[in-house]
Amino acid sequence: MRNAEATKEKILEAAMAEFSAYGIAGARVDRIAKMAKCNKNMIYIYFENKEQLFSTVLELHLTRVYEEFAFTPEDLPGYAARVFDFMMANPDLMRLMTWFTLEQKTEQLDQRKEAHNRKIAELAKAQEAGHIGTDFSPAFLLTSIMVLATAWMPTNPFGPSIDPASSGKTDELREAIMRAVGRLAGEPASKENR
Amino acid sequence: MRNAEATKEKILEAAMAEFSAYGIAGARVDRIAKMAKCNKNMIYIYFENKEQLFSTVLELHLTRVYEEFAFTPEDLPGYAARVFDFMMANPDLMRLMTWFTLEQKTEQLDQRKEAHNRKIAELAKAQEAGHIGTDFSPAFLLTSIMVLATAWMPTNPFGPSIDPASSGKTDELREAIMRAVGRLAGEPASKENR
Repeated sequence: MRNAEATKEKILEAAMAEFSAYGIAGARVDRIAKMAKCNKNMIYIYFENKEQLFSTVLELHLTRVYEEFAFTPEDLPGYAARVFDFMMANPDLMRLMTWFTLEQKTEQLDQRKEAHNRKIAELAKAQEAGHIGTDFSPAFLLTSIMVLATAWMPTNPFGPSIDPASSGKTDELREAIMRAVGRLAGEPASKENR
Repeated sequence: MRNAEATKEKILEAAMAEFSAYGIAGARVDRIAKMAKCNKNMIYIYFENKEQLFSTVLELHLTRVYEEFAFTPEDLPGYAARVFDFMMANPDLMRLMTWFTLEQKTEQLDQRKEAHNRKIAELAKAQEAGHIGTDFSPAFLLTSIMVLATAWMPTNPFGPSIDPASSGKTDELREAIMRAVGRLAGEPASKENR
């Protein structure tokens, strides 16, 4: 039994590397088996098929994200900074999510959807309580925060791939992202001028 | 000669569909030839190899973008709205750019890089002239505008794939994007409070 768990773990680790590099269609179960030093059949026994293995790997890493850091609707710049730091340290996860979206898997990850809806509800509450501005809808705010916090990942066509000078400026970027998010989540400028 | 041009055009059209759906590694020259109703060898004669064909297709479409709409550093919300409308109408281009970035082609597209650098220079001038705020660097502003304007494309892991309710709200989204960009490009809130 301990052996089975160890094998599963090795497969998941190898799968993360393979899927992150090649996506779902491009990944080869042969290569995963070789990397995990196990028989290819074990992969099918434990995870059914390549698609199922991909979903398992992605959900596993997303669960880590949900557990690792709290969503703080009253401090959205701080949340953006934590997303930025985590994603920059885990580029493979961002690649996995991008492949998943690009390869048009219509199937939704339930856990991810629930986490998203929970955040939307918390943002709505924070707006009602007056902790953050109401100029943008909770859904618009959340998507904006996520794209700004992940804009300087290598996966973004408008990020470092087109602006190589941005790499290495981690502190500068984090600070600017926090200010940008603050600008969106704060009181509307128009009100300040009244 | 006219025949050769017609064949090339058919190949480029078929290649756009194939690459947009499957990416570079996943695309099959066989399928492109079949779609374009031409001999596979013609593709190699005209475009050398699959990678070269991909670059040609991407650059062709990006050139259209550069020609189609002007960059207006003094009206960044308007620019963001035009990017949003164009991209929503041309999801295949966004998919092409995402594949290109994800498949780690380190080769830079010269034309794209030049267009980017020109925009950065224009933003710097607009800041010096006081037409837009100076709270964010030109490079930060440009990347932020692009990610906000393309955040509701199906390719974004934090877009409609996680927030299906956003689809169909085109006017609402465009208006919110314009306001968000205005917030980032405008005078810093702190100055208004002084």
